[in-house]
Amino acid sequence: MNAVAIVGYGYWGPKLARNFAQNGSFGRVVICEEDPARLARGLRENPGSAGARSFADVLKDPDIGAVALATPVASHVPLALAALEAGKHVLVEKPLATRSADAEHLLRAAAAARRILMVDHTFVYHPAVQRIRALIQSGELGRLNYIDSTRINLGLFQHDVNVLWDLAVHDISIVNLFTSERPTTVQAIGSAHPPGPLASIGVLTLRYASGLFVHLNCSWVSPVKIRHMLIGGDRKMIVYDDLNATEPVKIYDSGVVARTDEERSRLMFEYRAGDVYSPKIAPKEALANLVADFAAAVHDGKPPLSDGRFGADTVRVLEGAERSVTGAGREVELTWS
Amino acid sequence: MNAVAIVGYGYWGPKLARNFAQNGSFGRVVICEEDPARLARGLRENPGSAGARSFADVLKDPDIGAVALATPVASHVPLALAALEAGKHVLVEKPLATRSADAEHLLRAAAAARRILMVDHTFVYHPAVQRIRALIQSGELGRLNYIDSTRINLGLFQHDVNVLWDLAVHDISIVNLFTSERPTTVQAIGSAHPPGPLASIGVLTLRYASGLFVHLNCSWVSPVKIRHMLIGGDRKMIVYDDLNATEPVKIYDSGVVARTDEERSRLMFEYRAGDVYSPKIAPKEALANLVADFAAAVHDGKPPLSDGRFGADTVRVLEGAERSVTGAGREVELTWS
Amino acid sequence: MNAVAIVGYGYWGPKLARNFAQNGSFGRVVICEEDPARLARGLRENPGSAGARSFADVLKDPDIGAVALATPVASHVPLALAALEAGKHVLVEKPLATRSADAEHLLRAAAAARRILMVDHTFVYHPAVQRIRALIQSGELGRLNYIDSTRINLGLFQHDVNVLWDLAVHDISIVNLFTSERPTTVQAIGSAHPPGPLASIGVLTLRYASGLFVHLNCSWVSPVKIRHMLIGGDRKMIVYDDLNATEPVKIYDSGVVARTDEERSRLMFEYRAGDVYSPKIAPKEALANLVADFAAAVHDGKPPLSDGRFGADTVRVLEGAERSVTGAGREVELTWS
Amino acid sequence: MNAVAIVGYGYWGPKLARNFAQNGSFGRVVICEEDPARLARGLRENPGSAGARSFADVLKDPDIGAVALATPVASHVPLALAALEAGKHVLVEKPLATRSADAEHLLRAAAAARRILMVDHTFVYHPAVQRIRALIQSGELGRLNYIDSTRINLGLFQHDVNVLWDLAVHDISIVNLFTSERPTTVQAIGSAHPPGPLASIGVLTLRYASGLFVHLNCSWVSPVKIRHMLIGGDRKMIVYDDLNATEPVKIYDSGVVARTDEERSRLMFEYRAGDVYSPKIAPKEALANLVADFAAAVHDGKPPLSDGRFGADTVRVLEGAERSVTGAGREVELTWS
Repeated sequence: MNAVAIVGYGYWGPKLARNFAQNGSFGRVVICEEDPARLARGLRENPGSAGARSFADVLKDPDIGAVALATPVASHVPLALAALEAGKHVLVEKPLATRSADAEHLLRAAAAARRILMVDHTFVYHPAVQRIRALIQSGELGRLNYIDSTRINLGLFQHDVNVLWDLAVHDISIVNLFTSERPTTVQAIGSAHPPGPLASIGVLTLRYASGLFVHLNCSWVSPVKIRHMLIGGDRKMIVYDDLNATEPVKIYDSGVVARTDEERSRLMFEYRAGDVYSPKIAPKEALANLVADFAAAVHDGKPPLSDGRFGADTVRVLEGAERSVTGAGREVELTWS
Repeated sequence: MNAVAIVGYGYWGPKLARNFAQNGSFGRVVICEEDPARLARGLRENPGSAGARSFADVLKDPDIGAVALATPVASHVPLALAALEAGKHVLVEKPLATRSADAEHLLRAAAAARRILMVDHTFVYHPAVQRIRALIQSGELGRLNYIDSTRINLGLFQHDVNVLWDLAVHDISIVNLFTSERPTTVQAIGSAHPPGPLASIGVLTLRYASGLFVHLNCSWVSPVKIRHMLIGGDRKMIVYDDLNATEPVKIYDSGVVARTDEERSRLMFEYRAGDVYSPKIAPKEALANLVADFAAAVHDGKPPLSDGRFGADTVRVLEGAERSVTGAGREVELTWS
Repeated sequence: MNAVAIVGYGYWGPKLARNFAQNGSFGRVVICEEDPARLARGLRENPGSAGARSFADVLKDPDIGAVALATPVASHVPLALAALEAGKHVLVEKPLATRSADAEHLLRAAAAARRILMVDHTFVYHPAVQRIRALIQSGELGRLNYIDSTRINLGLFQHDVNVLWDLAVHDISIVNLFTSERPTTVQAIGSAHPPGPLASIGVLTLRYASGLFVHLNCSWVSPVKIRHMLIGGDRKMIVYDDLNATEPVKIYDSGVVARTDEERSRLMFEYRAGDVYSPKIAPKEALANLVADFAAAVHDGKPPLSDGRFGADTVRVLEGAERSVTGAGREVELTWS
Repeated sequence: MNAVAIVGYGYWGPKLARNFAQNGSFGRVVICEEDPARLARGLRENPGSAGARSFADVLKDPDIGAVALATPVASHVPLALAALEAGKHVLVEKPLATRSADAEHLLRAAAAARRILMVDHTFVYHPAVQRIRALIQSGELGRLNYIDSTRINLGLFQHDVNVLWDLAVHDISIVNLFTSERPTTVQAIGSAHPPGPLASIGVLTLRYASGLFVHLNCSWVSPVKIRHMLIGGDRKMIVYDDLNATEPVKIYDSGVVARTDEERSRLMFEYRAGDVYSPKIAPKEALANLVADFAAAVHDGKPPLSDGRFGADTVRVLEGAERSVTGAGREVELTWS
């Protein structure tokens, strides 16, 4: 009952297989892939792994206690449901689903089956992201005012989802990790270049009851690659540049303070630009951390960080963004139970 | 009739005074400033200049043929109207007005008075911007797909206008220069940090009939200063980094081509990332170019680039953005006569 | 007679094994490693490879036609000699030897055995380096004036050779590739931090009959990693930044021209700073190119770029540098037959 | 007796005049310049200043208590001597002299005249340099191991001195400020491009009794401008990038520790790469600080940082470097009384 099956050996499956093998806490790694050439490659690249030609074989195998789904988005819900019903723990590649109702259905199924449902929001396990989260939670930034992220590059166009589901999904999961608050509204707008049904440029804004403002800028058609996030607190601010190999996180002792000028009876602003501090970030691979978290959940019952609820929250924001995009950027209200 | 009066000697007035003095084609530079200390400073910093304590004195002075207004935004319309009625040519600091109706009124007044009305959109005269414009007009980029600009820094908060009127105004003027097309819709959203009546973060998107998509990201509360604009054509793309002193303009021979895959009957995308070319940009000051353009208009009747119509178009976009901001990001249609 | 043996499976051996396997033109890849754990790892990481526990076994195996030595520097000469005498083609990790006399001895042995002797100067096969070489050879830079390289980082200290043999060796091979001229003098100075017998900082200069001046700055004790080379011609100049993933090579249309000012009877200098051009560099791995060059030499008799003579020339410069270091930076003359 | 005369109004004189005027502690600023056009410009640019057509007039004027020499290098010694003999305090543009004997002669003349002799090593007063000096003196870096500076750009060629006297002079003064130790040897090599009598590329190394090693790389013929200094201590290291406007000083908690591996009886090295910290550097102009230090010396007798002895030490190093350059890089011993 201790083997894990990697389902799908396309782009993401090989990374999962390698990390599950290196993790070592699962008895065996089974690669499930219908394409014979891909399956052969998977077995060659993962010495000691076993193969399965169909998902049905995985479900029937009593030795397989957990599955990791690395299949197209549209298949996430049916495959995860079947796996849960067969008594397997499930790790699903992001996004968990494309509709909130489906995500909630999966959550109920996992609860009923008493199995772990976890979503592969890899960035949540990135050491830089976790360091920033710790800084926010420690109060060092003060109250969060805004988060502004630019995630642009040339390609790769997805064929089933637009750029928001492909790129903004990362930022939404990061933002959801940084704060336990959930947005009250989402507003988004998209544009397709070259012309087509799926937006290759997407702009998304979120508002929160606390005043937090989030802006995400995503593109598949930028000549340069940028992974740049600003996190503004009222005490300090952070720049997180994921492409800066040596100093990805910089903490700025900078800020703006408003005070009322009694004499002139109007607001005055004071700026403060101080030292900059860049903590050493451990180079450990995010996916290894994620697999370890899944293993701890499966083996020891420890609640995972990126659990089904976390994944469903992310879907809810993207679903709202989708409605806003089709509504010409109209602000969409989000409700959280 | 050949003197020019600089009205207001606060932040921008000294730059105008220096550039008008260096231009030399106006007979005399008169500094008009009600604050005695500022006026004294102006006379000291501009040897050979004359002083005026009131705008009324400027209007009455038959030797003054032109005025350059560097006064608060709210005063632009009444002062410009009075100057035009007194027969002076007028250069107005951006924005020309805060309402389209006022801008149009000024245009009519200038036409009636047969005087030059020009707006100080300085970036329009920046050598890098003019070089990019020439590249676009030559067809080297192909069809324009998108423009994406980030203009963020710490401070300075304005007291009379929000961040869109202060920072996005530059990008809108640049975009208006790059294309003779005008946007069909504008959508914008703002957020105030610290809390207050004026947004310190602003996000704005524009749509065009041709498919062009523009996204502007402005902030007064970023710990780092960024002046970064992407211009994406379907043949080449440009990155314009105004803070890169040696290579502000980079032309990327990169792109995405869509083609239909007959066999699988779906769109395929091909990426092309080629050479990068950075043309030498002359270091000449933009404001000197602008003053020269104003001088050519006043002295020789040459139509200026940043004329009243150009300034009014920029106001129309910002006015629409303002309506969108108060309408929670609702897309606002723009009409152009 | 078509197998290749990788001798030594420490730091560099795994890279060679992978590239020889991917090259595919050798019948079989044999991993020769005395340490059982390393050998086991080698066989696991290279499916389809065979193992050998001793170099003697490799020499005796008639099926092995070529060996690639990835062993400590001191072993290069005896192992290469033995392999050549056994009729094998030999690829030696850089440096070929630590004494010119030894290098020349190897050259004669290879000639006598009619076998290929090639040195693994990987940078010579780097696409960026080859592109720069082509630009120089085309005359685009004009006459070469200087080459200035900084190659510094934190660690890894070598235990058998100082920083010049570890890092400057790369620059010397690159410089030797860029010009067929060989330096007339070498001058070098070293410093050891922390104190010890081997210099961790090294500065080296070369002079050439043509006037070319080369300066190399190497360090194992820099807090930041820099791989920055300037190549100055009298028409254009190049900056080669190996850490710039997207624009490693930039060509500057810049220069200085001297002319005699007749009136004041002294030299005047005119500066020219023009456009910058960054050609697209193919991302192909340098080591794959090197293995392909070795394969073409072994299979088709095509003379390799980094042949024994090339490797011996590099040793001669380093040997001279070593004499200069121990002579307190005294300039050492180099003779070339 | 409280006026100050700026002698020479070419490149540096205007900066001195402006800073002395802003300092305000001298009664009057007199501009001494033989060229009438330059003198007229000086009087225009410095309202309130007086003019002098000859140095003799300055010497005779009893109201002038101090002179600041911004004249060609060759004139420094005779003009400074004459001024000291006339009872004036003297600030000399760097370098103080081109021969140590001359510098020492000036020191004796100043002592005999009981007047201040100070040298304009502006970088010594740069806030970033002073911050680094404080960090070194506080012991935060531990023992100084090395300083490695790159100071290269395109032009401006000097007509009277080579690149070492023009650019390395800055680094030598900075290094002399960082440590009270003086080098025991200097070694230098130069190269002239385009060909000519004065080296446009210069490489200089210094050795110290403590083990400190200094390497300077200067050039007038680089297509890119670099101002990059590494300061390596055995506890921490600093990168000082003078072109980084926002984070010029970065402190790296990085290092290398050597320990003896008993078992294998050889040295082992451990690397440590930790946090990075960038202190806020005040933007105050270095020259204003220098003028304030000169004023404190003249008015209050406070010993200046960059005094005659400091300037003479810098000359001694450059003089040794000159001998090394003409001796093909031979190491030259320096003696300090």
